[in-house]
Amino acid sequence: MTAALLMSDPLGATLGLLALMWLAAKLGGEAALRLKLPPVAGELGMGLALAALGRVFPALPDVTKSPAAELLAYLGVVVLMFAVGLESTVAQMLKVGAASFRVAVVGVVAPMAVGLLGAWLLLPAGTPFAVDLFIGACLCATSIGISASVLKGAGAAKSPEGRIIVGAAVLDDILGLLVLVLVSGLVAAGGTGAGLPFRELAKTFGLALGFLALALTLGRFATPHLFALANRLRSEQVLLPIGLGFAFLLAYLGNLAGLATIVGAYAAGLILEPAHIKDLEARELHSLEELVHPLVVTLAPLFFLLMGAKVDPVALMQPRTLLLGAVLAILGVAGKLVSGWAAGRGLRAAVIGWGMVPRGEVGLIFVATGSALTLNGAPLLSAEVQAGVVAALLLTTLAGPVGLGWVLRRRAAGP
Amino acid sequence: MTAALLMSDPLGATLGLLALMWLAAKLGGEAALRLKLPPVAGELGMGLALAALGRVFPALPDVTKSPAAELLAYLGVVVLMFAVGLESTVAQMLKVGAASFRVAVVGVVAPMAVGLLGAWLLLPAGTPFAVDLFIGACLCATSIGISASVLKGAGAAKSPEGRIIVGAAVLDDILGLLVLVLVSGLVAAGGTGAGLPFRELAKTFGLALGFLALALTLGRFATPHLFALANRLRSEQVLLPIGLGFAFLLAYLGNLAGLATIVGAYAAGLILEPAHIKDLEARELHSLEELVHPLVVTLAPLFFLLMGAKVDPVALMQPRTLLLGAVLAILGVAGKLVSGWAAGRGLRAAVIGWGMVPRGEVGLIFVATGSALTLNGAPLLSAEVQAGVVAALLLTTLAGPVGLGWVLRRRAAGP
Repeated sequence: MTAALLMSDPLGATLGLLALMWLAAKLGGEAALRLKLPPVAGELGMGLALAALGRVFPALPDVTKSPAAELLAYLGVVVLMFAVGLESTVAQMLKVGAASFRVAVVGVVAPMAVGLLGAWLLLPAGTPFAVDLFIGACLCATSIGISASVLKGAGAAKSPEGRIIVGAAVLDDILGLLVLVLVSGLVAAGGTGAGLPFRELAKTFGLALGFLALALTLGRFATPHLFALANRLRSEQVLLPIGLGFAFLLAYLGNLAGLATIVGAYAAGLILEPAHIKDLEARELHSLEELVHPLVVTLAPLFFLLMGAKVDPVALMQPRTLLLGAVLAILGVAGKLVSGWAAGRGLRAAVIGWGMVPRGEVGLIFVATGSALTLNGAPLLSAEVQAGVVAALLLTTLAGPVGLGWVLRRRAAGP
Repeated sequence: MTAALLMSDPLGATLGLLALMWLAAKLGGEAALRLKLPPVAGELGMGLALAALGRVFPALPDVTKSPAAELLAYLGVVVLMFAVGLESTVAQMLKVGAASFRVAVVGVVAPMAVGLLGAWLLLPAGTPFAVDLFIGACLCATSIGISASVLKGAGAAKSPEGRIIVGAAVLDDILGLLVLVLVSGLVAAGGTGAGLPFRELAKTFGLALGFLALALTLGRFATPHLFALANRLRSEQVLLPIGLGFAFLLAYLGNLAGLATIVGAYAAGLILEPAHIKDLEARELHSLEELVHPLVVTLAPLFFLLMGAKVDPVALMQPRTLLLGAVLAILGVAGKLVSGWAAGRGLRAAVIGWGMVPRGEVGLIFVATGSALTLNGAPLLSAEVQAGVVAALLLTTLAGPVGLGWVLRRRAAGP
């Protein structure tokens, strides 16, 4: 028994949990597919179902308690965004840059405005304005992983709409950063306009934009040399470790500049162009996209399953939470749908709008920040408001892939 | 600044570390290749170099302190063993079963005997016999990951010698378990032969053997049905998550039965035969081996790098540690080389012997166990003895791939 205990490395239970997660994700994806929904909606739903099951049967393993599952899930979304970046080039992105910028700005302003309005209408009289504003801010940032997965699955990642969505989501991330600094500064100043943190705003904006500018210029010139160097190695199987290493390095550096890791990974994919790696790809008989694909297929479903499982099913079921969540979700969806029209003529506004709908990690970071802030001695966001906002984020996360899948199919079948 | 801090998910630093590890592993592998050594020797050496560098420049990131790197490294060796298992079938393994059994038994008994002798000669007079015995036991179990990587790289995993090595290493793991129970029981009984834990020995042996027997019989009959079911899913990209899930499930169950996780993963690969998955492979246009390959290529080098980095370079440099380590390593290599001849006629004894040479995780588990045991009130293994044994394990780990690469090349160039 002693020996058996000693040989049972702690990895054993993790492996069992991962096997369970893959099975659950695949079954959820299959159920969604049969209901004509994108698989990612089924993976999210299955995660939620696992969370609810865990409440009924506490003996079941809790996927949200496993640091290993968390790590692999996050690596999954990083690798997914790298793969999405590989499908486009910098030149193609610059071509849709202006449209992306319009979508990003409208997609931040509109949900903030309607979210603020909804919070003002629903919350008891006397609630400080800063609370309403903060709730609006929670709805502003798109979580691109989900839409990227749907777009990739439908072969639409390379369409103009697909590129605009991803570009807008990257800009979105920068704008989200600014909004958080602005609103947090406002709260710290006692809810009045006095003492706005202009210096910090400028610094945050400058760092994030500076990283992207450097990556897309200097990075673009350095990349061919890096991979030409890698091609001089005699070792086999160089392309994937060096390619992934490049993506992870940019994710790390972007993160140091204040951006979410997925933005840096996406930028790495964008910078890497087929011409830089064609010799390595020829030598290894596989393209980098083909080599990254198995990693995406195994890791990304863990991310979506975990996103669903992180929802507290009991808090979700309170009537007041449900009401606040439902209203904010509807307003949040409407605000992003409006942004689709900002892209311009000749583009499917509904595809872009629905692609911008899912909210996720960034919104959750806002909620966590808001729960830690205090205004006049009281916590800025009450537990009830927090649960309501989280419910709204979840609903957009479920509605996004459903709506996007629907408009993409309609488009494919259209005239 | 607050916002930047909030957006910097803890994953950022991990991504930077992984990028560094891939770069280091590839450079180490390249250096080894140019010295006509197997890349894995270079990866181990580079890990050791990183550990030494970390002592000189303490500001450098320490790869051994990252739970994320540890997890991915262990997943790497699990996936590697699954991939090695996929290269053989149960029938092919049964054909070499008798030879593997002879190699395993001689490969456990011979290193234990010479290790015991070496310890008896080198350690001060009056050292309890149980200490000598325990040191011998530390040298008995082969760490198959390293040889598997060399064999796979040289295209020799499907050769009779390659199969015998892997089969012997699996049996080795069971014998190692028994030795640990036996020796720990002996120490608990005060170093005398009285009170040997026969019941526990029988239970350990029964569980481990029972798991393997069930996996190779029941598992083999259930597998075609499992994958036929998976083939009825309409989802895409089913093969890899379900295949990996199957491997991880068996690794988990084998671990519950007291076996190292890599044994279960290997068994899963062995059971899975091309006929079971040919429909799924045709649908997904890639074989399971092709899909697993990118995971092996990215994760396994992290394992070897980490194995090297775990060595304490300062403890290693003590003269007495070096002497004990060198003598035990030479004896440990000799003991496993002898086992090669036990395979029988018509086989390259040197290839099998060198393939059995690397020791690793199991030996380290023995050392950790021995350092926790007490005999007559004193710790069984002193700090000095521990460092010496660890040094010996490391030396076999470095010598193994070098020797195996050498005899494999000689064979390829031979008449």
